Amino acid sequence: MPTLSLKANQMPASPIRKLVPFAQQAKKRGVHIYHLNIGQPDIQTPNKALEAVKNLDTHVIAYSNSTGIESFKEKLVNYYKQVGIDTSSEEIIVTTGGSEALLFGFLSCFNPGDEVIIPEPYYANYNGFATAAGVKVVTITSTIDDEFALPPINAIESKITPKTKGILICNPGNPTGALYTKEALTELANIIKKHDLYLFADEVYREFCYDGHTHESVMQFSEIHQNIVLMDSLSKRFSMCGSRIGVFLSKNKDLTNAATKFAQARLSPPTLGQIMGEAAFDEPASYLNEIITEYKSRRDLLVDGLSKITGVKVAKPKGAFYCIAQLPIDDSNKFCQWLLEDFQYNGKTVMLAPATGFYANPELGKKQVRIAYVLNKEDLKQAIECLKEALEKYNNLN
Amino acid sequence: MPTLSLKANQMPASPIRKLVPFAQQAKKRGVHIYHLNIGQPDIQTPNKALEAVKNLDTHVIAYSNSTGIESFKEKLVNYYKQVGIDTSSEEIIVTTGGSEALLFGFLSCFNPGDEVIIPEPYYANYNGFATAAGVKVVTITSTIDDEFALPPINAIESKITPKTKGILICNPGNPTGALYTKEALTELANIIKKHDLYLFADEVYREFCYDGHTHESVMQFSEIHQNIVLMDSLSKRFSMCGSRIGVFLSKNKDLTNAATKFAQARLSPPTLGQIMGEAAFDEPASYLNEIITEYKSRRDLLVDGLSKITGVKVAKPKGAFYCIAQLPIDDSNKFCQWLLEDFQYNGKTVMLAPATGFYANPELGKKQVRIAYVLNKEDLKQAIECLKEALEKYNNLN
Repeated sequence: MPTLSLKANQMPASPIRKLVPFAQQAKKRGVHIYHLNIGQPDIQTPNKALEAVKNLDTHVIAYSNSTGIESFKEKLVNYYKQVGIDTSSEEIIVTTGGSEALLFGFLSCFNPGDEVIIPEPYYANYNGFATAAGVKVVTITSTIDDEFALPPINAIESKITPKTKGILICNPGNPTGALYTKEALTELANIIKKHDLYLFADEVYREFCYDGHTHESVMQFSEIHQNIVLMDSLSKRFSMCGSRIGVFLSKNKDLTNAATKFAQARLSPPTLGQIMGEAAFDEPASYLNEIITEYKSRRDLLVDGLSKITGVKVAKPKGAFYCIAQLPIDDSNKFCQWLLEDFQYNGKTVMLAPATGFYANPELGKKQVRIAYVLNKEDLKQAIECLKEALEKYNNLN
Repeated sequence: MPTLSLKANQMPASPIRKLVPFAQQAKKRGVHIYHLNIGQPDIQTPNKALEAVKNLDTHVIAYSNSTGIESFKEKLVNYYKQVGIDTSSEEIIVTTGGSEALLFGFLSCFNPGDEVIIPEPYYANYNGFATAAGVKVVTITSTIDDEFALPPINAIESKITPKTKGILICNPGNPTGALYTKEALTELANIIKKHDLYLFADEVYREFCYDGHTHESVMQFSEIHQNIVLMDSLSKRFSMCGSRIGVFLSKNKDLTNAATKFAQARLSPPTLGQIMGEAAFDEPASYLNEIITEYKSRRDLLVDGLSKITGVKVAKPKGAFYCIAQLPIDDSNKFCQWLLEDFQYNGKTVMLAPATGFYANPELGKKQVRIAYVLNKEDLKQAIECLKEALEKYNNLN
């Protein structure tokens, strides 16, 4: 049997994935699981998007242009204008999910061995694409005590080596819920300019900001426009994760041309997802406003509930729909597995994401978990109750 | 501005893509173009597939499992059984088009610098994925005089070096329409076994065989099951290219586990495409039979028409819906551009794919073009007429 590639061996197996068999066994035992482990919202996809596929009037589901359907791209351009980002159809490549935007960006910008700096805890799947492109992830740690703010700029700068080719941020943050300030981003833009690095900005949770905070896009820094790869996705904005529609946006023409060649090799992003996406932008603004109100009240319920559990610490999220909680436990991998394997409370349990997978050094996430507040408030309440009982029981056992 | 990656610079720009601006200009001038340049069939997507999305009864377009929706995978298992391939759900990863199956395979099997042998002329987009994975493509030339049969096994074996890690075949062939014989494939399997190489088999055109020829799958060689990556797609079989549903199939458990990690990083293949695909398998067998009959009669019309043009040579395709034609021209790139830029016949012209992009050495394709017979017979007839006029005029000019 021929050997596997080095990349295959380097590909990280996510701590969440390792829990899946235990979740399946729990379900087989009849235990109900509250899934706080994944960013799959229960929110309804916009009616206009669903109607668009239901009223499909084509007889052939054909390839679209490799960079996307023109009329959909025009809708995207208009959307970006509304959120203060001036762009054009030529600067946009429609991708198969935000993931593919990252892949095209990594392949176009980085050589194997190049380094990309990412504030941790960070979205674990970035690792997969870094491995695919042979890029080394260098992390700079943000802390729960600092509410996972962007680390001080001199700390970030100290991580820059001759091999550093870019910095990647996720804002609003998955898994932290952090929202970076304009001041912090201005400093970051200066560093990008000074060292002539690429800035990868994952802004897929752009709209999900709470308490009057507003999202600051990196696109406001025109002096680094040639350095920016904006990664976007309709998955969370319109709760259409399964449609697999993302966006690669860059004002760097050479870079967009390079990424277009990777896009052409895979022929076309999903046509039906684009049809849905185009229609979703016709949904009235009330759709998003209602969702944001809903997430805010879920967040409040969650943070309030967690705060009342002895020994639990939370950085109140200002954006997205995740929060990192520090728990009075010895090992989050062990605890999350135990929740599925050995625990139930009134026939129910909770599935959480161990934070170990969000740090380069898993030790840093050993007492932390990520909680996605993607369940309705009644379920969320029950889930918190469940977690409270679990922590008491777990700590009496250990 | 930071530099682009070496891969970005290495990514080939396809000769077909270079023609697109000329096609756009021709359309602006009001010239009708017969598109024989791409594999986008005009055939209707199965009604059951279209109905499945029209009758969608979900309110959230959610992620599916990373390796695909279980009920869809069961349909795939059943389909493979019908075509003589014994498999199970665990051996299948649903991918975003056949392209992604190739990408996952290359990333899982090959290290940068490894070599993969591909008979040429070959599907040009393989280059994109080889570049993405840093894999070197080594070609072995098949010829029009030999109807693009698999080259003699000793010729293939002579290309094997210590860096060779796999062989890739496309059968039935795009762009050649060649169908490999059982004998040739048996010899290939022996070489795979002897040198312990991976065998990538692109069998997406499996059903499209004519004149009583049957498709021979590499999966019949159980002695090399651990070496095989089967790449498949529903795009052509069900004329649903835009749904972006492909399949990675391997009986090598370690390899499937590795590819699964790449699949998990991108979360999910398109959900709507899978719903369509699942329903498409419920379409009666008459659907495919009618398509195959249609393609056969188009092929006959095309080959017959081309044979009547002085100086044109065709290898009669036995499968797929492409054919390579050798034309009495100086340069296929130049000729294909001229067709769009300077020629029209009764307000019409033809767009063809220069074969230069299908060979490692473009010179080999300088007098050849690929013709996809994806138009209805009336249009195809007109297109051949158009090509005949064009060749006369072009040769009088040169």
